[in-house]
Amino acid sequence: MAETRVSPIPLLQDELDIVIPTIRNLDFLEMWRPFFQPYHLIIVQDGDPSKIIKVPEGFDYELYNRNDINRILGPKASCISFKDSACRCFGYLVSKKKYIFTIDDDCFVAKNPSGEEINALQQHVKNLLSPSTPFFFNTLYDPYREGTDFVRGYPFSLREGVPTAVSHGLWLNIPDYDAPTQLVKPLEKNTRFVDAVMTIPKGTLFPMCGMNLAFNRELIGPAMYFGLMGDGQPIGRYDDMWAGWCTKVICDHMGWGVKTGLPYIWHSKASNPFVNLKKEYKGIYWQEELIPFFQSAILPKDCTTVQKCYIELSKQVRAKLGKVDEYFIKLADAMVTWIEAWDELNQSGKSSELPNGPAK
Amino acid sequence: MAETRVSPIPLLQDELDIVIPTIRNLDFLEMWRPFFQPYHLIIVQDGDPSKIIKVPEGFDYELYNRNDINRILGPKASCISFKDSACRCFGYLVSKKKYIFTIDDDCFVAKNPSGEEINALQQHVKNLLSPSTPFFFNTLYDPYREGTDFVRGYPFSLREGVPTAVSHGLWLNIPDYDAPTQLVKPLEKNTRFVDAVMTIPKGTLFPMCGMNLAFNRELIGPAMYFGLMGDGQPIGRYDDMWAGWCTKVICDHMGWGVKTGLPYIWHSKASNPFVNLKKEYKGIYWQEELIPFFQSAILPKDCTTVQKCYIELSKQVRAKLGKVDEYFIKLADAMVTWIEAWDELNQSGKSSELPNGPAK
Repeated sequence: MAETRVSPIPLLQDELDIVIPTIRNLDFLEMWRPFFQPYHLIIVQDGDPSKIIKVPEGFDYELYNRNDINRILGPKASCISFKDSACRCFGYLVSKKKYIFTIDDDCFVAKNPSGEEINALQQHVKNLLSPSTPFFFNTLYDPYREGTDFVRGYPFSLREGVPTAVSHGLWLNIPDYDAPTQLVKPLEKNTRFVDAVMTIPKGTLFPMCGMNLAFNRELIGPAMYFGLMGDGQPIGRYDDMWAGWCTKVICDHMGWGVKTGLPYIWHSKASNPFVNLKKEYKGIYWQEELIPFFQSAILPKDCTTVQKCYIELSKQVRAKLGKVDEYFIKLADAMVTWIEAWDELNQSGKSSELPNGPAK
Repeated sequence: MAETRVSPIPLLQDELDIVIPTIRNLDFLEMWRPFFQPYHLIIVQDGDPSKIIKVPEGFDYELYNRNDINRILGPKASCISFKDSACRCFGYLVSKKKYIFTIDDDCFVAKNPSGEEINALQQHVKNLLSPSTPFFFNTLYDPYREGTDFVRGYPFSLREGVPTAVSHGLWLNIPDYDAPTQLVKPLEKNTRFVDAVMTIPKGTLFPMCGMNLAFNRELIGPAMYFGLMGDGQPIGRYDDMWAGWCTKVICDHMGWGVKTGLPYIWHSKASNPFVNLKKEYKGIYWQEELIPFFQSAILPKDCTTVQKCYIELSKQVRAKLGKVDEYFIKLADAMVTWIEAWDELNQSGKSSELPNGPAK
């Protein structure tokens, strides 16, 4: 399978940053060296800024701790979470590249069923560079993959596809379960290698995990805000979910695709379910209101850039979710601050304006 | 993998019929003997009724040719296609069982990557007996499968799932391509075994292939009409597609699920692409109007049974697609005739009435 070969020339070497949030030495990079070394890393150090994070020799990186974030963003730094992996989105903000791959520091190189090491980054790039098919389901999965195509009955007018904004990868070994499921199934491991990439259909939400995720920053970057989590906030472990719901609603509006499936990484260690339960429990019941909110969210036609979409979404969050808990008022404010910070740091202003308005 | 073991006790032996449309001797059943012999077969003989179709010894079956269909349905026989595998839906009509599995006579037993023979019927039964999750996408696919679950961020209120109405299986070797794709890629084979079953999300249409298909007849049977194809009709090879679009719209309305993925069968031989092109070419351009039609079809709340949904859909077909071609007027009439025939032959009247109205 092509995805498992190490490409002699790394794909998009000068157009992609790898963003890693961490609180420890980055020894995990040793295993990724053949795949990551050609790329630039943006390391977002969480927690105590005086701690020294060691990065293995030979990697090209920039590292930001909390002091750096405060210095660079000033009062707008309030929108970047502290003591939560949500801080990773600061890396998206300061990147100057077209594509981002973000990975957790407890994720290692997985092997495919033939025992070959999977070049996760290469597969993400393939996913992002080939179109998506959000308007109709193809039963043989990604029709652009070698050895497959659109099946009988797939409308020809839809076979060109649409640009892919997000590539969501999966995890072998420790699955991404919530605290209650972790508690109930402490020993469950994901051993099933599903050899598929697929587009998540338009109008369908999914739980986006930030552990192994790539996206087209130029297209969808301003919507990849990981919210207010961790220190001083009533909730954690919903950072990637929040970003995923906002992103999916905006991709659906803009006519872009979100893919999920390959590549797999090897997730080494389950986090503590008791700690997770404390972080998650408000999210678990809030979520029952968040999902209907996002399922019914409609963005008006004049939202022709991701920034406009995101500001509009923040207004709807304030108006509708503000009633659920005052936390969402604070979050709506932070969403606006995030966009202000984004525009400040990305002044060349390459926001993807839709020439003829949004897709719907 | 559980799906590959031959179950000592065949699942739902007395509640499932296997429907096979054919024009030739059913030698292909020899390979299926260990899996199919415990079940009852309904064979729908297409073409010349005077031809004798040989069925291997030891199978329990009933066989219907065109004369039988005409005798049993009288004038209503006009809704059953002739010289097209669409005739198979007559088998659904005369069955008295809760579940149907239908398979083409050029489909053989496939092997999984470990080389074990796949018991396709058993996997379909598993799919039909476990719930579906049409309202939210689970990134680890079917959450009810052994070794997997709902991932973090999946709303707990949706984890009970909904009844599964349809199980759509796939094909190794010859993929189900349309004539243009067959012509362009004459040698392409499907060799990728994707070890997944998933629910097709609510609001998303898919190309349902009738080659390897199972469904809960008690739930969705009246919508499994394969239309007017073949002899005397301007179109062929859209029978299963038509049934799939109608079925999906009605399942979405009723709150039932449609699954696709496992099991695979081995599809032995590509049909003639030139013959197929002749059958398909009107469908290929009509389809561009059919998909938006089905995507925007809304069934009113008082459609609380599949029969009511189907009659309503026939009215919309007449009103909206009748403008595309007069063929759709004829088809709308046939849809009504089909429901009349269904109700006549299934008078015990076990139609699934929704206690509290439809899902939406």
